[in-house]
Amino acid sequence: MATVRLLKDTEVSAEALAVFDEIRAARGTDFINNFWRALAHDPALLRATWDRLAAVMSDGALNPLIKELIYVAVSAANSCEYCVHSHTAAARAKGMTDEMYGELLAVVGMASQTNALATALQVPVDEQFLS
Amino acid sequence: MATVRLLKDTEVSAEALAVFDEIRAARGTDFINNFWRALAHDPALLRATWDRLAAVMSDGALNPLIKELIYVAVSAANSCEYCVHSHTAAARAKGMTDEMYGELLAVVGMASQTNALATALQVPVDEQFLS
Amino acid sequence: MATVRLLKDTEVSAEALAVFDEIRAARGTDFINNFWRALAHDPALLRATWDRLAAVMSDGALNPLIKELIYVAVSAANSCEYCVHSHTAAARAKGMTDEMYGELLAVVGMASQTNALATALQVPVDEQFLS
Amino acid sequence: MATVRLLKDTEVSAEALAVFDEIRAARGTDFINNFWRALAHDPALLRATWDRLAAVMSDGALNPLIKELIYVAVSAANSCEYCVHSHTAAARAKGMTDEMYGELLAVVGMASQTNALATALQVPVDEQFLS
Amino acid sequence: MATVRLLKDTEVSAEALAVFDEIRAARGTDFINNFWRALAHDPALLRATWDRLAAVMSDGALNPLIKELIYVAVSAANSCEYCVHSHTAAARAKGMTDEMYGELLAVVGMASQTNALATALQVPVDEQFLS
Amino acid sequence: MATVRLLKDTEVSAEALAVFDEIRAARGTDFINNFWRALAHDPALLRATWDRLAAVMSDGALNPLIKELIYVAVSAANSCEYCVHSHTAAARAKGMTDEMYGELLAVVGMASQTNALATALQVPVDEQFLS
Repeated sequence: MATVRLLKDTEVSAEALAVFDEIRAARGTDFINNFWRALAHDPALLRATWDRLAAVMSDGALNPLIKELIYVAVSAANSCEYCVHSHTAAARAKGMTDEMYGELLAVVGMASQTNALATALQVPVDEQFLS
Repeated sequence: MATVRLLKDTEVSAEALAVFDEIRAARGTDFINNFWRALAHDPALLRATWDRLAAVMSDGALNPLIKELIYVAVSAANSCEYCVHSHTAAARAKGMTDEMYGELLAVVGMASQTNALATALQVPVDEQFLS
Repeated sequence: MATVRLLKDTEVSAEALAVFDEIRAARGTDFINNFWRALAHDPALLRATWDRLAAVMSDGALNPLIKELIYVAVSAANSCEYCVHSHTAAARAKGMTDEMYGELLAVVGMASQTNALATALQVPVDEQFLS
Repeated sequence: MATVRLLKDTEVSAEALAVFDEIRAARGTDFINNFWRALAHDPALLRATWDRLAAVMSDGALNPLIKELIYVAVSAANSCEYCVHSHTAAARAKGMTDEMYGELLAVVGMASQTNALATALQVPVDEQFLS
Repeated sequence: MATVRLLKDTEVSAEALAVFDEIRAARGTDFINNFWRALAHDPALLRATWDRLAAVMSDGALNPLIKELIYVAVSAANSCEYCVHSHTAAARAKGMTDEMYGELLAVVGMASQTNALATALQVPVDEQFLS
Repeated sequence: MATVRLLKDTEVSAEALAVFDEIRAARGTDFINNFWRALAHDPALLRATWDRLAAVMSDGALNPLIKELIYVAVSAANSCEYCVHSHTAAARAKGMTDEMYGELLAVVGMASQTNALATALQVPVDEQFLS
């Protein structure tokens, strides 16, 4: 259960509803997930978060699928249950195969392991990496 | 400064030196970075870490560059200074352009922001993400 | 479900019950939340935790509401589900308005984003900040 | 040392320089700290980050000093060295006294302790906190 | 609910089933916990994880119980709900008493508190600790 | 450099000096490490931290060396540079051998890896672990 009530379409402000409409148009579905319904209590925060997310996750030098894989990895490292589920689902919708997912998990696990080792050992950064 | 002395080639065991040789061969350079010189105090840990890293980061359903981008993202989320530097350098060596790097940073920043928001709001996972 | 059984008043030691009584008196309610019922297995840990919490959260240069806002922010950053819920409830009980909560969330989200960016970029600290 | 070169005014794009000018005007100083000089490699990221930061940290239901205290707390929880230094300096500039700082530290320490205890014990959230 | 289906014995590959058999033999029980049933989608990841876990957690300079206590501590610090539960149960099975558990919790809480304080204060490392 | 000046004996309050004296007596050395010199700005925080640390780290169901190993593990997981160095030094002073240290690192690395995997997969806790 969230710390705030999840707002229905009929309960949100006009400003928030306009964001919901943009999300629906961008995704081609009527479904609005809970994250946005929780943020809708603060239309300015909802607007800023959606606008920035749409810009950041759009196609560019990295394609949307690669961006979702990175998003899943960060969400796991930050222990965000909601984000792990929502972005893993998004990655699959954008074409992540079972093989890709297995490799993503392996990299996330390996990075977490060597992160812990390097931090525990306080290894100084090689000069070669700083040039 | 590390919690252990960084070992020179002349100071490590034969087992550790064999791992150094494999790292050199795999990377086509004589340079061994500090992480491995710290791990060399425990040849079994060095061996296990290198073997697994080589397997995980090899080409597969995801190519080595994408894997490095994910590695950088996890290392930043875990606040590992050494790993951020070493894997950012590795990503560049594997072809990461300035445009890719800017987009990687933007995704890492955005994910960290929405991770914090979803956790602070304790948003319940939508059923649609669980099927 | 906790890793230990949540103890009822009739199951705890006299030392633990004395702490429960202090919590009840300080808060003006008979309700003892689960955190304390879990800690009650170790009366010394329960006592030390409650005594310190009461001292830290009392009115001072910062008032109790501001301290709760900070507590919520840290709890979200540390991904503590229990603490996010309990301290968000406490902040509301101490006067946090919807506007304050929206701004708290925005700051927590923004800080998490720039934390990730500064760590990923390994930005060196300006000398001006060190004087 | 950062993973990118810190850009001087003479090296940044017109778009980035416009952001620098806004930062200078908003803060009433010619000084641009390293974080922005690192972000300037990607003018769009620089623009989005500054615009959002300025909006989030402005006076509202919470005043700028309280927002800085929260920012310091999150930065410490996320182990961001740069952010701890820059926002502690900012909090002082906005009026944080030694007494406030001592209390901020005490709350951050206490929250981190009980976060760890509640997570280690996996304490279930009380129904009273969910209504 | 996991991001993948938990696989039954009749659904996994021969390679994965061989790992299940080794887990059963090592633990002297027919029970396979959900972590392995989730990993079984990627037999190579399952194999690598189990082999390394068995090696790392075996008796050595530190006994298996001490290793489990350390595992629980790290899992709590990393906010891993599953791992906290599974390794707390494992520690009990290996002989962790209520007194040990209380002391483990106290150390984890204390370390988390001083970690936060030292990071918030950015205390420089004493030269005496670096020799 | 710390966010506060590290205080010399001649600069601290009588209350803080009394804590310094207790630290010296307990450790049998005149050396006071930087953490306490930073905390000395707030004598009440210094007192509370030292008193609790001394109680928590004393001999009990777990001996002081095991407690230090756990402290190092948590400090690494929390990315606290200062704490990793100070508690690794303390563990060595209490008898941690090179073999123990290698095994500690291996457990910390392995736990971090499986923590990340279990969180990324959102594995549900087995009922067997909850009884």
